[in-house]
Amino acid sequence: MSSLRITVWGENVHEHSNSKVNEVYPKGMHVAIAEGIRRILPSAAVSTATLQETDHGLTPERLGETDVLTWWGHLAHDEVSDEVARRVQARVLEGMGLIVLHSGHFSKVFRLLMGTSCSLAWRDSGERERLWVCNPGHPIARGIGRCFELPREEMYGEPFAIPAPEEEVFISWFEGGEVFRSGCCWRRGNGSIFYFRPGHETYPTYHDDNVRRVIANAAEWARPRGAWVDSGPNAAASAERTSPR
Amino acid sequence: MSSLRITVWGENVHEHSNSKVNEVYPKGMHVAIAEGIRRILPSAAVSTATLQETDHGLTPERLGETDVLTWWGHLAHDEVSDEVARRVQARVLEGMGLIVLHSGHFSKVFRLLMGTSCSLAWRDSGERERLWVCNPGHPIARGIGRCFELPREEMYGEPFAIPAPEEEVFISWFEGGEVFRSGCCWRRGNGSIFYFRPGHETYPTYHDDNVRRVIANAAEWARPRGAWVDSGPNAAASAERTSPR
Amino acid sequence: MSSLRITVWGENVHEHSNSKVNEVYPKGMHVAIAEGIRRILPSAAVSTATLQETDHGLTPERLGETDVLTWWGHLAHDEVSDEVARRVQARVLEGMGLIVLHSGHFSKVFRLLMGTSCSLAWRDSGERERLWVCNPGHPIARGIGRCFELPREEMYGEPFAIPAPEEEVFISWFEGGEVFRSGCCWRRGNGSIFYFRPGHETYPTYHDDNVRRVIANAAEWARPRGAWVDSGPNAAASAERTSPR
Amino acid sequence: MSSLRITVWGENVHEHSNSKVNEVYPKGMHVAIAEGIRRILPSAAVSTATLQETDHGLTPERLGETDVLTWWGHLAHDEVSDEVARRVQARVLEGMGLIVLHSGHFSKVFRLLMGTSCSLAWRDSGERERLWVCNPGHPIARGIGRCFELPREEMYGEPFAIPAPEEEVFISWFEGGEVFRSGCCWRRGNGSIFYFRPGHETYPTYHDDNVRRVIANAAEWARPRGAWVDSGPNAAASAERTSPR
Repeated sequence: MSSLRITVWGENVHEHSNSKVNEVYPKGMHVAIAEGIRRILPSAAVSTATLQETDHGLTPERLGETDVLTWWGHLAHDEVSDEVARRVQARVLEGMGLIVLHSGHFSKVFRLLMGTSCSLAWRDSGERERLWVCNPGHPIARGIGRCFELPREEMYGEPFAIPAPEEEVFISWFEGGEVFRSGCCWRRGNGSIFYFRPGHETYPTYHDDNVRRVIANAAEWARPRGAWVDSGPNAAASAERTSPR
Repeated sequence: MSSLRITVWGENVHEHSNSKVNEVYPKGMHVAIAEGIRRILPSAAVSTATLQETDHGLTPERLGETDVLTWWGHLAHDEVSDEVARRVQARVLEGMGLIVLHSGHFSKVFRLLMGTSCSLAWRDSGERERLWVCNPGHPIARGIGRCFELPREEMYGEPFAIPAPEEEVFISWFEGGEVFRSGCCWRRGNGSIFYFRPGHETYPTYHDDNVRRVIANAAEWARPRGAWVDSGPNAAASAERTSPR
Repeated sequence: MSSLRITVWGENVHEHSNSKVNEVYPKGMHVAIAEGIRRILPSAAVSTATLQETDHGLTPERLGETDVLTWWGHLAHDEVSDEVARRVQARVLEGMGLIVLHSGHFSKVFRLLMGTSCSLAWRDSGERERLWVCNPGHPIARGIGRCFELPREEMYGEPFAIPAPEEEVFISWFEGGEVFRSGCCWRRGNGSIFYFRPGHETYPTYHDDNVRRVIANAAEWARPRGAWVDSGPNAAASAERTSPR
Repeated sequence: MSSLRITVWGENVHEHSNSKVNEVYPKGMHVAIAEGIRRILPSAAVSTATLQETDHGLTPERLGETDVLTWWGHLAHDEVSDEVARRVQARVLEGMGLIVLHSGHFSKVFRLLMGTSCSLAWRDSGERERLWVCNPGHPIARGIGRCFELPREEMYGEPFAIPAPEEEVFISWFEGGEVFRSGCCWRRGNGSIFYFRPGHETYPTYHDDNVRRVIANAAEWARPRGAWVDSGPNAAASAERTSPR
């Protein structure tokens, strides 16, 4: 197989406006996420893109050369242009993998692909989170034990307003008393989508070895599975007129 | 149970611009669809709404009083305002049932809820269609035999670019050699969605007894299932901050 | 709709061998479960059957007159005859609803229908369980708030070795640090299956109002959905030879 | 990745009792299936096993060294011992892939894993079958065009009494007027299962290039996905007692 091309997208706002975040992620959250993937998948071609770049760094050419895109956003979902959001959606339908991280649950891209509100309950009191593997044979859980912990995280609670996951890999337990479907898989068009819960900006979650392992596993799971379909039915929103066969 | 409130939405364009359509559906396709439902569900409260009305007849009040909405559109998908399309989407997530008919596969409403392109292959040569029941215990197939036929219909062929159906009720066989997933079910938020394939405007499909039976069955299946959730997590696209419990 | 006919099946062993269980359920756990359903569904026809009766109380006639069967077993799964287990499986495929309770996860009936090991992790230390609703529009969650608690229960933990649930209604949080998919739905043949976690024999779980509400809701949800199929393809394990149509 | 170890299991009865079958498959159907896989996956380690061998060739050791098992049976499903059938089921739950071919729909192994009757309608009149790809991005459809044809095959028709497929890859169109879900995917425990319809013993279906391509693609798709779980929850039908964490 050829080298896996991964683009790590970051909103890149908190890092410059919040000293606590800057302390945890001095080079930016996207850089930490990219470093984690590189360490586990040394042969992958990992690059980053941010909101502030032209086209948010996601030109058609760039997306065309991306096998898997990871998405972290929080404060500035509305600043992502509708055009770019729809372009990412179309590229997923064409076959690109997508990994949506934490507060990316409310991104335009994720909501366009899910079709639901993607709302949830939340509380940021720096509590303990334990992620349980509910599907130990799933490739995204490879190398993870029965569960792993993050000593301090934001809480996300059910109900999480998503379509029923096609495969569920992790469920979180929170010290304060809540649960959450933390690792969920869907197929849309030719593309594979994974949502992964942890990653609040004020905690060093993306420096955690288990979190890095999960993201790297997910990137491999989400790589395009089938033939590249240049002009196929999922590529564009047009119906095709056929002749009797 | 209280009376089932059904709103039949029609684009209502072909009927005035194409004499062939006008001949088959002189009062409009939506009127024929509504009549079919009334005949099978006499206790239901069935009304119609069309593109040409203010807000396309789908004001927040009207939607708030609708348990199940049926949708037929073809020529004028783009003339449906984004605001009304998103309003219908939100109402489905809140619990309203939605039945999407034939060329409604390309409506804004259906594509917003599916998140995919919803494209397909097609051919209009007036060929024979046979719809097979692949799930004989499903309530939408109640009263239908092993299969039923429509002597002349437009062909729709795979691949149909939809998320994997959660339940599949009908698969179509076409004289010209194609197949199609003709009756598909999904849940989104609190709402139930059914796509039903037949219904090209130039054929008397909505006068057919089996087609009418399926649409009426689907309306009963799609009625709101749970408690009414006034301000619940699916109702609006906002996350809720909670306190430790 | 005609009256819903519910048969509550109980293993009925602990009650006679363990004084603690006898204290909590002096008339038997099955009697407490049946009373709970009757209180919430007064028009339903609720009866009980136990392991000790001929055919474990589940003759073909009895099953033929049952719309929904609930199943609680623990110590004596192996004493259920293979013939009766297969008879129940066949009746579910024919359309009967099935509600599997707590330690019934290891019953012959549930394992035959799931096809997997149905194993899980467990600990009985009388800890607090909180059941979260992750699908608030689902009819099985009707009348339940965002979550409810049981002050003392046995813990069941992931991974729960089941096929991916088609709909998930509850996820449990345990005081000791585990999570569990506590309310799961599947369709098999013409029948509907619901697994519901709580119900260890030494705790008064089946006297709890929320637990009773869930079981009653599940019975309504699981009632046969479609036409009765007397000799249909799901009724028997035989293929049918057809002629060209 | 290490070499993919594939075992092709054949009932091997028709070949010796029916001269027509012997003419089409003089070395046995299993040999033809194995040859097809070898041609497309030259690096795979492909071997065969048959009903007549001790333990039907499927000892615990042999299964332990098998990544993917293909299964063809028809006349002699009942001659497969319950012990071996359950052993294969357990090995699938542990992670082995399983490809069930044609009349294998009624094998003990497939029915144990599905939990349903697996019945269908059928007719053998040597008619034309056309298999449509309904999921063009799926790896099992790699290298297959929009559809392919088999000039003469047995017909299988809906309803096919299986649990809802988690992914659907092919739907068949038959000359005589039927349709069938011909390529269906499920996950059970740690294992992946694919059912593929074509392959009646009197036609040269397993010499067909597209059929061979699909089986080889399916073998790659079904290879164990996750970590090997030696004593994990899916490996054995026992629950595990845990201590508070």
